Amino acid sequence: MRPPYYAVIFTSVRTEIEEGYSEMADLMLTLAQQQEGFLVIESARSEVGITVSYWKDLESIRKWKQNLDHLVAQQKGREQWYSSYTTRICLVEREYSFEK
Amino acid sequence: MRPPYYAVIFTSVRTEIEEGYSEMADLMLTLAQQQEGFLVIESARSEVGITVSYWKDLESIRKWKQNLDHLVAQQKGREQWYSSYTTRICLVEREYSFEK
Repeated sequence: MRPPYYAVIFTSVRTEIEEGYSEMADLMLTLAQQQEGFLVIESARSEVGITVSYWKDLESIRKWKQNLDHLVAQQKGREQWYSSYTTRICLVEREYSFEK
Repeated sequence: MRPPYYAVIFTSVRTEIEEGYSEMADLMLTLAQQQEGFLVIESARSEVGITVSYWKDLESIRKWKQNLDHLVAQQKGREQWYSSYTTRICLVEREYSFEK
């Protein structure tokens, strides 16, 4: 992808509550990919989870943040699935890739 | 941390070569943390690995990229440990945190 574009870095620590989590995570992944301005998403989890979603512009991120289903997921996330998280909104200025 | 500051998002896919990898990763983690302008680092690996390091400014990132030990690690990474990777340099504009 050619900069400039935006990244949302979501870093989280989970609680021990598993119920409903993976279903909601799958649903949010599907929904996010349908939003206007969505580019791509990458996710990994070890002690912390890091999910980075990439977006065309700030307006797309703002709309996704306010999406009704996503607001429900955010609320349940705070109540049940996450003990802490940080969301960072970032302007991607440069990108370098290597491939064998 | 209060924005603005910078994030380097390093997303990678590993080869099957394990030899020397974790020692070099540990060394680079230690060295990065000693650099001027370094703030914090977070890492997770599932199918892909995502490491995000945070820095005070672009100059700190540029110096770390050119650090001699780091240049050796980058070279060995391309030759042995990574089948692909992408590095993105990002300006963190906003940050929100939640903690129980």
